[in-house]
Amino acid sequence: MSIKSAPIRLSIVGVGKIVRDQHLPSIAKNADYQLIAAASRNGTVDGIDNFKSIEAMLEAVPSIEAVSLCMPPQFRYEAARTALDAGKHVFLEKPPGATLSEVADLEALAASKGLSLFASWHSRYAPAVEAAKAFLASTKINSVEVIWKEDVRHWHPNQDWIWAAGGLGVFDPGINALSIVTHIMPKPLFITAATLEFPENRDAPIAAAITFTDADKLPVTADFDWRQTGHQSWDIIAETEAGRMVLSEGGAKLSIDGKLVHDEPEQEYPALYARFAEIIKAGISDVDLAPLRHVADAFMLGRRKFVEAFVD
Amino acid sequence: MSIKSAPIRLSIVGVGKIVRDQHLPSIAKNADYQLIAAASRNGTVDGIDNFKSIEAMLEAVPSIEAVSLCMPPQFRYEAARTALDAGKHVFLEKPPGATLSEVADLEALAASKGLSLFASWHSRYAPAVEAAKAFLASTKINSVEVIWKEDVRHWHPNQDWIWAAGGLGVFDPGINALSIVTHIMPKPLFITAATLEFPENRDAPIAAAITFTDADKLPVTADFDWRQTGHQSWDIIAETEAGRMVLSEGGAKLSIDGKLVHDEPEQEYPALYARFAEIIKAGISDVDLAPLRHVADAFMLGRRKFVEAFVD
Repeated sequence: MSIKSAPIRLSIVGVGKIVRDQHLPSIAKNADYQLIAAASRNGTVDGIDNFKSIEAMLEAVPSIEAVSLCMPPQFRYEAARTALDAGKHVFLEKPPGATLSEVADLEALAASKGLSLFASWHSRYAPAVEAAKAFLASTKINSVEVIWKEDVRHWHPNQDWIWAAGGLGVFDPGINALSIVTHIMPKPLFITAATLEFPENRDAPIAAAITFTDADKLPVTADFDWRQTGHQSWDIIAETEAGRMVLSEGGAKLSIDGKLVHDEPEQEYPALYARFAEIIKAGISDVDLAPLRHVADAFMLGRRKFVEAFVD
Repeated sequence: MSIKSAPIRLSIVGVGKIVRDQHLPSIAKNADYQLIAAASRNGTVDGIDNFKSIEAMLEAVPSIEAVSLCMPPQFRYEAARTALDAGKHVFLEKPPGATLSEVADLEALAASKGLSLFASWHSRYAPAVEAAKAFLASTKINSVEVIWKEDVRHWHPNQDWIWAAGGLGVFDPGINALSIVTHIMPKPLFITAATLEFPENRDAPIAAAITFTDADKLPVTADFDWRQTGHQSWDIIAETEAGRMVLSEGGAKLSIDGKLVHDEPEQEYPALYARFAEIIKAGISDVDLAPLRHVADAFMLGRRKFVEAFVD
């Protein structure tokens, strides 16, 4: 017999597209949460109290226990610090911040206050990711190819923050691939070369070609491109002693040597909110910076190339 | 009474300018070491066995106990891994690698083998650094300004690797400033904005202007420039409640409100080798990635600006 505890009184900050598409439906379906307030410069959520800033919200609704932060990463540190200082657990949308150093600082603050900090990586919860990890652990890998190509005009229409310095550009979807790769590979990878293509009118890259390796000199490449029209590709392909593994559709589908072994509807955000409730109950944090560390490494090590201007 | 142990049998890899200027004299003066071999594509060290590669050296001289790695950072991981796999302690010149991820991997490897890994930051051992740290801990800081301006033609003549992707450009000296700042500031900093100036013919920046802050919103700026002729500046200036602190000449001189309180000849590399012997004896590693993390953050968050070509 399980004793049902009171739901976590949750609030959400930064009400934009991802919140409407993913966060609100996932929270509504999860009995562990009661969404009681939102704060956003522009958006509002129907049926709950809405505020213009996190400060106003936390002052007006002191019973809030946890905060989901979904504003652009450039503004996330200050909101996270405000929430942690007020004694709230914090869920960070991906990427968890604009710099590695600020997230390290938040992690130390959460630990010092006994609060839970969750650096969420939704793609790690794609349906076939665990099966891919188990397969890769069971064989010898010869090479890996990551292909993440999508149409930015379709997925990020007029999102200027994503093109600003710190907005990460094509690494915004690319970090999803990196969050899967860093989870499923048996040994840690590191970047040995990268080329980043910047539109001449933008401060963030529209494409990146990256070469990784590991301690065993495994060849791993990643090709991120935001200029893909038509078929969209979110694939991780591994050539192994046990055949060719294709993890496709962003981690939703898995096939081995042409045979489909896993194909289920995705439940990424519901799984993220289940994980957040779990770490709050356990009194721990979940902050793995490896995906963002690879992005920072790519910017530091990468060669810059300028390409034609991008206009939405 | 102290019992004198046998000296550590040391080898050195990558015999270039910094090895001749700093490493060899420091090792020669330290009774804790016996330098027995060197490996380098081009350079040699008189009076000891010289090899073309670390692999050839380790095979020919199995009694080597520790290795100092002084090749360009882009080639350091593989040499470090080779040395650790062979059971040797490793000293890494700064920066400790071309990426954060590869150094994290080396750190885990050293720990798993019970070997000492030293990510050295020579500027932290400048004579007035500890006095500056103690002063800053004793007062309230209002602002900090870091000015690191030098003439690349004088300090790095024809060092093409430093201008290649991964060579860090002006962050090669700038990381010295960051290694001091991250050591002396009472709270962790993180970058909020940066502008990196790239010569149009080079893959690494010649100048960078960075804005940092901390949990208390302290204003901190850093100005790195490699185009400084005439007077060279390596200064960290803090305005505090107890007056103006100037840590100048790369950490060698300290003055408070115009009064010189510390001025001693530098002994950075002798101190580094003393520290390396200390951690080997203690059976620990010393790897603080904060300076390199700030560099990666600056590349990831920074705006890129192209400036006139640089020709040596």
